[in-house]
Amino acid sequence: MDLHTYEKEFFDLLKRVSHYEEAIALMHWDSRTGAPKKGSDDRAESIGQLSADVFQIQTSDRMKELIDILLAHAEELPEDTVKAAELAKKDYDHNKKIPEDEYREYVILTSKAETAWEEARAASDFSMFAPYLEKLIDFNKRFISYWGYEDHPYNALLDIFEPGVTVKVLDQLFSELKEAIIPLVKKVTASGNKPDTSFITKTFPKEKQKDLSLYFLKELGYEFDGGRLDETVHPFMTTINRGDVRVTTRYDENDFRTAIFGTIHECGHAIYEQNIDEALSGTNLSDGASMGIHESQSLFYENFIARNQHFWTAYYEKMIEASPDQFQDVKREDFVRAVNEAKPSFIRIEADELTYPLHIIIRYEIEKAIFSNEVTVEELPALWNQKYHDYLGITPPSDAKGILQDVHWAGGDFGYFPSYALGYMYAAQLKNTMLDDLPEFDQLIERGDFEPIKQWLTEKVHQHGRRKMPLDIIKDATGEELNVQYLIEYLVGKYSNLYL
Amino acid sequence: MDLHTYEKEFFDLLKRVSHYEEAIALMHWDSRTGAPKKGSDDRAESIGQLSADVFQIQTSDRMKELIDILLAHAEELPEDTVKAAELAKKDYDHNKKIPEDEYREYVILTSKAETAWEEARAASDFSMFAPYLEKLIDFNKRFISYWGYEDHPYNALLDIFEPGVTVKVLDQLFSELKEAIIPLVKKVTASGNKPDTSFITKTFPKEKQKDLSLYFLKELGYEFDGGRLDETVHPFMTTINRGDVRVTTRYDENDFRTAIFGTIHECGHAIYEQNIDEALSGTNLSDGASMGIHESQSLFYENFIARNQHFWTAYYEKMIEASPDQFQDVKREDFVRAVNEAKPSFIRIEADELTYPLHIIIRYEIEKAIFSNEVTVEELPALWNQKYHDYLGITPPSDAKGILQDVHWAGGDFGYFPSYALGYMYAAQLKNTMLDDLPEFDQLIERGDFEPIKQWLTEKVHQHGRRKMPLDIIKDATGEELNVQYLIEYLVGKYSNLYL
Repeated sequence: MDLHTYEKEFFDLLKRVSHYEEAIALMHWDSRTGAPKKGSDDRAESIGQLSADVFQIQTSDRMKELIDILLAHAEELPEDTVKAAELAKKDYDHNKKIPEDEYREYVILTSKAETAWEEARAASDFSMFAPYLEKLIDFNKRFISYWGYEDHPYNALLDIFEPGVTVKVLDQLFSELKEAIIPLVKKVTASGNKPDTSFITKTFPKEKQKDLSLYFLKELGYEFDGGRLDETVHPFMTTINRGDVRVTTRYDENDFRTAIFGTIHECGHAIYEQNIDEALSGTNLSDGASMGIHESQSLFYENFIARNQHFWTAYYEKMIEASPDQFQDVKREDFVRAVNEAKPSFIRIEADELTYPLHIIIRYEIEKAIFSNEVTVEELPALWNQKYHDYLGITPPSDAKGILQDVHWAGGDFGYFPSYALGYMYAAQLKNTMLDDLPEFDQLIERGDFEPIKQWLTEKVHQHGRRKMPLDIIKDATGEELNVQYLIEYLVGKYSNLYL
Repeated sequence: MDLHTYEKEFFDLLKRVSHYEEAIALMHWDSRTGAPKKGSDDRAESIGQLSADVFQIQTSDRMKELIDILLAHAEELPEDTVKAAELAKKDYDHNKKIPEDEYREYVILTSKAETAWEEARAASDFSMFAPYLEKLIDFNKRFISYWGYEDHPYNALLDIFEPGVTVKVLDQLFSELKEAIIPLVKKVTASGNKPDTSFITKTFPKEKQKDLSLYFLKELGYEFDGGRLDETVHPFMTTINRGDVRVTTRYDENDFRTAIFGTIHECGHAIYEQNIDEALSGTNLSDGASMGIHESQSLFYENFIARNQHFWTAYYEKMIEASPDQFQDVKREDFVRAVNEAKPSFIRIEADELTYPLHIIIRYEIEKAIFSNEVTVEELPALWNQKYHDYLGITPPSDAKGILQDVHWAGGDFGYFPSYALGYMYAAQLKNTMLDDLPEFDQLIERGDFEPIKQWLTEKVHQHGRRKMPLDIIKDATGEELNVQYLIEYLVGKYSNLYL
């Protein structure tokens, strides 16, 4: 057989995986948008079967043979083929190095741990969850020993979500960030110049929120030909296939921010997926480059566009029309200040853009300590509360509002949190470079002309899919290494202006 | 290996098929309830992949080995295992006897034929579709020669949709039916005592139709815990899994009958699927016994319950509430007469219950003539129009309103139509026996107490799934062979009463 035949067989296997993944994604979407409860057990089994099929292909001997052949002839092959083979090799190694029995045991454990976590959180009692967390950590430590790592065991986990980003990189970035933000948060907290947010929680009819969500998606460049908006308890974006990228949102009649900013956040994720080079469809390159790069796009749309005062120059009138009793006596500047309120809080997912990175840094420092054996599970709640006190000036009143708030650990997702903060840094650095190319950025937003912004992001980020590593995307787009100063400048500038 | 190990492996394979079928069913449902257009090509490929997986399992050498082992030891095995193995053998033979290349060519042909049919229907020009129909018929004739048949080649096609029903059976039933109904239709057509239907097409708000559709589903015993109602252009029922049986409907603001009777029709299908013995889940026995038995259940709910005057004693008040301008001046008796209007018409799917069987008999006679080489494709439109003239007293003004109206032939579904008429016969015979057990049938309906009716149907029909052949279900439930006289008595009684 010639090389081309192997190459075709390899891509046929990837395509087959993409078909199973389409079915899995649709089943997940359906489960969260109204599938009847009674079918959920069978549904879980069907998802299990298809996931097993994907795993089987990714770890098959034939896949390994094809990868080895292609990588041995890398210089004769197109770049995309080599990159796809490298990623397939990474999946193969990642999955194959864990003994099958051990992995099965681990999957069962995460399922039980999630139930235990739900109960522990409801009872606000960390000790109910601790034994599961202990085992999950032990498993992950063993996995790290199977996978191997450089410099720090935690790097093996970071590599899953943000390939190329290491403890060394994060220590540097986060220490600069802490140094700048902790004092800023203190000043903002102490400021007497706080926004009036009393109108935020007034009733905003659900149907009007829905109309506006659809309207903003369309304005921002989300393609409805290849997507749809639905309602869920926990909003998300999911790619069914390249021509079918769906978003969901939640309507809270007493807090319009959930739907408006939530929809625009998911819109950023979706515009990313809708603009990956179509040539990559059906391959393992047709996906976001990393969790953090994905988050940079959602945050770009949510914060740099929709929380930007110029956005509301264009659209505040729409808000007044949709909910006149709520907004007709509120000045636009006061609205903008209110939706940019910043204050220390306990719950990460409710945090504003200024304090959010501190929530992440706390989790990062704790996870790093766990995997370098510097802290026991028993000691975690105290460590958590101490860090909230030190960085945010508040002490969680309970485990539920503290260490038990996130589902990630129960699912075995250690190393995931840093990507959220990296998303902020990536976004700020991209925005800084974008201003060189589009100096009229604010005026474009005021005119509701988002096409040049989308095109810029598509050229620099979206189209590449997983062709590039996250840090390379940033370097190629901005001409320099990841630099946290752009985020710091943005936050200091914006929040000094608003509060000080 | 002992027999039990083979048995388990066999059921594991069936379970795997059921998981793929769940994904396929969900993808079809999703495609018809709002999936974005741009994703449809990828979607078709994913469905193709999963269908190929199902086919591969059903026709695998291992499947054949397992079937042979199990059937060789039938007397040592539970009845359900033997029945499942027999059905699997039927699938195996059916699929395996057609050469793979030929089957692939045929699938491509049906896809092209459906497009050609759409265009031909739009142009109302049979000659555009004729070459495709010619080829489809040739393929099916060859398939019949591969499969083999007894007595009449058309029996091989009937067996796909209504196992056990033959040309001999149908000739007898349909000739009795024609003899009774053709003169009745003539009398009804000539009657001066026609219902006033002018109010039918008055505006009935969509939201109110939706509320009522949901209400009737609940009243009739459809379980929303294991189902949901959505909107589609062509309403249908689909089973995603045993705990997830969905229905769809269409809201026509100028004809409430589409939604009200359409929803109740699909409700009958769904109640069937929701009440198959759960022990059969994940096997090939967890399905309706046949197309015709399925149709008997939808028709039972639509005609014997919802077009029954006693149903409206209970619920007409609801209709007036939902659309007062339309109904407040219409007496209940006049409403009942109007929704039971019968008159000859060209389009099968718009026909009433009296004339509907004649539409089916026409198609049956034509298909039988095709497969016994008694008619050429060229002669079909004239034959079609002649039969409409002879049986219904009307002559189709165009191919679109005549021979081109149904999609079935374009999809290669010959032998399917008779099941619709069998559904009427099954339903009428079941109803007749039900009256012995539940003599207060009409009073139950007037009280909105549908539980005893559902329980009776579940005991006699639903629970058995595919454990029994269709004619055996009828015989076991009613104590006699299929007898068309019950349908004739019902139609003569009802329409003499309404019109003569």
